[in-house]
Amino acid sequence: MADNGSSRKALSGIRVVDFTQVIFGPSCTAQLADHGAEVIKIERPGVGDLSRQFGPYVDGESMPYASINRNKQSLAVNLKSPQGMEAVLKLIDSADVVVSNFRQGVMESLGLGWDEVHARNPRAIYANGSGYGPDGPIGSTRKMGHDSMAQAMTGVMHVNADSNGVPRRAPIAVADISAGSLLMEGILLALIERGTSGVGQKVEVSLIDAVLWMEAWGIATVANATAEADHLGNPLDGGVYMAADGYMVITGLFKPNPLQSICEVLGLSDLSLDDRFSSVDLMTENGAELEAIIQAEVEKQPRDYWVSKFDAVDVLCMPVLSLDQTIDQPQVLHNEMVVEVPSNKPAGASTVVQRHVGIPVKLGSTPGTINSPAPGIGENSREVLAGIGYSDAEIDEMATAGVIGIG
Amino acid sequence: MADNGSSRKALSGIRVVDFTQVIFGPSCTAQLADHGAEVIKIERPGVGDLSRQFGPYVDGESMPYASINRNKQSLAVNLKSPQGMEAVLKLIDSADVVVSNFRQGVMESLGLGWDEVHARNPRAIYANGSGYGPDGPIGSTRKMGHDSMAQAMTGVMHVNADSNGVPRRAPIAVADISAGSLLMEGILLALIERGTSGVGQKVEVSLIDAVLWMEAWGIATVANATAEADHLGNPLDGGVYMAADGYMVITGLFKPNPLQSICEVLGLSDLSLDDRFSSVDLMTENGAELEAIIQAEVEKQPRDYWVSKFDAVDVLCMPVLSLDQTIDQPQVLHNEMVVEVPSNKPAGASTVVQRHVGIPVKLGSTPGTINSPAPGIGENSREVLAGIGYSDAEIDEMATAGVIGIG
Repeated sequence: MADNGSSRKALSGIRVVDFTQVIFGPSCTAQLADHGAEVIKIERPGVGDLSRQFGPYVDGESMPYASINRNKQSLAVNLKSPQGMEAVLKLIDSADVVVSNFRQGVMESLGLGWDEVHARNPRAIYANGSGYGPDGPIGSTRKMGHDSMAQAMTGVMHVNADSNGVPRRAPIAVADISAGSLLMEGILLALIERGTSGVGQKVEVSLIDAVLWMEAWGIATVANATAEADHLGNPLDGGVYMAADGYMVITGLFKPNPLQSICEVLGLSDLSLDDRFSSVDLMTENGAELEAIIQAEVEKQPRDYWVSKFDAVDVLCMPVLSLDQTIDQPQVLHNEMVVEVPSNKPAGASTVVQRHVGIPVKLGSTPGTINSPAPGIGENSREVLAGIGYSDAEIDEMATAGVIGIG
Repeated sequence: MADNGSSRKALSGIRVVDFTQVIFGPSCTAQLADHGAEVIKIERPGVGDLSRQFGPYVDGESMPYASINRNKQSLAVNLKSPQGMEAVLKLIDSADVVVSNFRQGVMESLGLGWDEVHARNPRAIYANGSGYGPDGPIGSTRKMGHDSMAQAMTGVMHVNADSNGVPRRAPIAVADISAGSLLMEGILLALIERGTSGVGQKVEVSLIDAVLWMEAWGIATVANATAEADHLGNPLDGGVYMAADGYMVITGLFKPNPLQSICEVLGLSDLSLDDRFSSVDLMTENGAELEAIIQAEVEKQPRDYWVSKFDAVDVLCMPVLSLDQTIDQPQVLHNEMVVEVPSNKPAGASTVVQRHVGIPVKLGSTPGTINSPAPGIGENSREVLAGIGYSDAEIDEMATAGVIGIG
């Protein structure tokens, strides 16, 4: 937060008109903003981004919303008002990038589809995030996208089934956030390509495609071989054990004979010489036996003891942490992945700083920075409209008429 | 595959020297290659990328390897040979991007650290993927990164615990692939910035930072509020039910009263008027009761019946599919997310095509394409070395001396 926002960034000078909400789209435009783009978030007056309604709240502000809307400006405008749409179109005329993740057809019904935007501003890159793709058997319907739908459709819930057999969502926004990063990539690719062609292009990323990309190895397996390889069945590959003070994970890969090293640490004779465990296939087949032997030793000492012992022989070992423990890990703080952000200071705010996720892409010369907290609804309406030529009187009139909201 | 590789791509003219292996790094450089960069993969003669040892195999070729190394060239070279290193340095002199995901310290020990590369070729972007960051309490050790370590450290395994309480890995490469996309982003940001400065910079992304970015909402919750919000506890948010022919998921969000619509579809009286279920908090509190009522109806009909019924009232519903079912879904095929790639045709190959993951970032004017399958070890050694000035005689001599491998 030391940066005053004036230093050069990778995306300095890039203007983004941002119609996104909830997670997928905002996680993309947050990254654009973190790296210096001017991101103007279009919100519905009074209501704003849907995710503003998701708790927990601090001083009335949604923490989920605050986390991935820092560094953005908010223009609250009624898109159904002709005067409001006129202002948005003027803004689009000045934009390098237009991003949305409405359900399919909404941008078109507003007159903001690719054809219209491209005709008005041929340099604008037009990025659309969808649930299933812009067309095709599901994509061409108006079915809304959601992380749960994408996980169900792509085998993630199936393979994450509980031991009682009931499928479960992976408890992390795999579809939303990975799709957000891919949408960011697409925009950056199109910006690079525009450097040659001078013309913007359309970028499409869907939630299901993003998960499928994550499953590249799994697809290669099920699409080309007769049986799915039980990669996770090897008890040395991410095996979970209960130490004296909690769970930890051991991954004995990337060594010629990891089991030998594990036995050395545990004070056991070399089980890699045991006929039951002398190959990865045999270890997998006799996994329960091997796990029981390892477990009986691991429970005698606390996790930190084992981590340092295993580190010393270059076998991977880590305590299994809950997220509230994670956010205070020294390495996490060192990486500036949980950082203090000033709160938006609503009247009577009890806190002046919040803690949010940092910036994962670290650039050496032009690092991203967090310069401002997530905006209130319409907090920047006045300055954004003034920037495209509206007078104070016009802005006041639009506010009075309910065309715009002023935060 | 119709494209002959000559059409313009977003990254046409960009040369990448690729020291990556396994998943994280190769998933980044696969995306660079898909969008037109010339990616030259540096491999150890005879051994190659570690992931070549992971099954299943088709005609002797590792399917996991094949999936995310298409469109790349392979230069097999012994980095411990001075003559081999000389060739690699010449290649770096011609590079726009140098990427690696070795354990920390390896590139430096080879004389290929940022300082050396930047001094030789100031325009080169230097991208490093690590497990924990390049420095800090864990990053500064030589501890190797792995998806299992990142999931353990970031709360993912904890929150994904089985109903018996044992933590489990999310069964998808959340850390590796999301970090690979972020590394790709960092490289694209640095390419854009180089357009202004003329100078390359360092890009750093770690596995743990990538997962933390994915947890933005969760971090905002645990870092600012007293208790973790039980977002997944709402039985209407990704609730799993057994239909007559298998599991499906129902997500009743984004509507003023989704439970009313769900009851309408199920032929039940409106449970949103029931005191037990009249708010999200109450539905969560009395989730087991609500789930039992819904379950009793859902099991009467097959999944397709319910999906079309719920689609009609705009409530999200999807069968829970296994990955082998996913890859043949019409929408997945429509999106070209599972595509045929010619096999590398080793002697005696039984198959001439493989099926692999497609390209998730869809560009309108300059779409990425898959032009060539994953290379054999050293398959392109001759042409790559010829391209930087080596004569045929020199190349033959290096091959005979074991400095390079020729595929």
